[in-house]
Amino acid sequence: MRTELQVELRLVKEMLASTAQAVRSALGTATTALLAADREAAESVISGDARINDLCWRIEDRVQDTTARQAPVASDLRAMFAALHVAADLERMGDLAKHVARTATRAHPRPAVPADLAPLFGQMAGVADRMTAKLVRVLSEPDLSRAAELDRADDAMDGLHRDLLARILAPGWPHGVQAAIDAALLGRFYERYADHAVNAGRRVAFLVSGEAVVG
Amino acid sequence: MRTELQVELRLVKEMLASTAQAVRSALGTATTALLAADREAAESVISGDARINDLCWRIEDRVQDTTARQAPVASDLRAMFAALHVAADLERMGDLAKHVARTATRAHPRPAVPADLAPLFGQMAGVADRMTAKLVRVLSEPDLSRAAELDRADDAMDGLHRDLLARILAPGWPHGVQAAIDAALLGRFYERYADHAVNAGRRVAFLVSGEAVVG
Repeated sequence: MRTELQVELRLVKEMLASTAQAVRSALGTATTALLAADREAAESVISGDARINDLCWRIEDRVQDTTARQAPVASDLRAMFAALHVAADLERMGDLAKHVARTATRAHPRPAVPADLAPLFGQMAGVADRMTAKLVRVLSEPDLSRAAELDRADDAMDGLHRDLLARILAPGWPHGVQAAIDAALLGRFYERYADHAVNAGRRVAFLVSGEAVVG
Repeated sequence: MRTELQVELRLVKEMLASTAQAVRSALGTATTALLAADREAAESVISGDARINDLCWRIEDRVQDTTARQAPVASDLRAMFAALHVAADLERMGDLAKHVARTATRAHPRPAVPADLAPLFGQMAGVADRMTAKLVRVLSEPDLSRAAELDRADDAMDGLHRDLLARILAPGWPHGVQAAIDAALLGRFYERYADHAVNAGRRVAFLVSGEAVVG
């Protein structure tokens, strides 16, 4: 019984890791769509979001089934609940990748991001990508120090986000109101994505250590 | 055993309903803070968010304890999982009320919303308030038709949100870039709040009917 539950938990973690990988790939493609005004890439992210949602629902189903059949207690039950939270964060991160892609589509054929802001968005996307890669690894081989690395990366993201807002609000912004709003919303999408990656990392840490990581 | 579980489930629903009421009150105060540039009101919402988070954590703890002690199955287990999702939506709605209050604080003493947009924000806040009131009632006396009413209210919110963006992006927006970004973000906060209310309502419906309400 106990062993069967361990097998099940490992499977759930594998499902979470492959979903995190799918989310990572979606945000990468959405960023390409954004910076290269590539409509086809944007549309593949938008239509592909249903698959990520489906992966998340399957994890939830699996957790419910296992909980019903095996009635886990203590740390095993906590692990099951943590898995649900991580799945919810991943679903939301997938949504945010879709929001980036939608913003790119709406602006098309104009790039949604003015050329002078493209490097800053490239940096934000780079931080988000490395955070998701860390999350995949934390899910594969839980390690509390990696969860702390996610916190530090999130600080970098917050700094980039502040830089972005300062650029948009500097006197003489030349790109008009629509571009200002798009840039502010896009900045928020990347920043929220990073927040969810941190939350997910903390839940994994919680699942490993049996204690909440307060931050 | 079965009766004990029913008592526990009812208690969890009561905790959810009173948390929803606290969230409703937070958004109401945040809206006052926004439209009346009332800094004290804004600060009470910002500091009060910890209490809402605490209420949500207590629900989660209670659900985990009950699941561990009583090993519910089938529809009772589904109800427990639905309660977790509703708690997560309520926590997020509380965060969004805090975001509204923070935007009001940042702009202070200037109103964050130009006077000509205040009535539109008043309408969005009114829809959000009525949605939360419905959610409180759905949690108190589950009723599928009320969950459907939440969907219709969300359509009204989406319409108001579109009107808002059209106003901000109309040629000759006179209030500058900062006010445009604030208004766009605030519109998004109310719209996201309504989305979470709909999600929460659907989970409650799911818990009552035993079937997902697809929409």
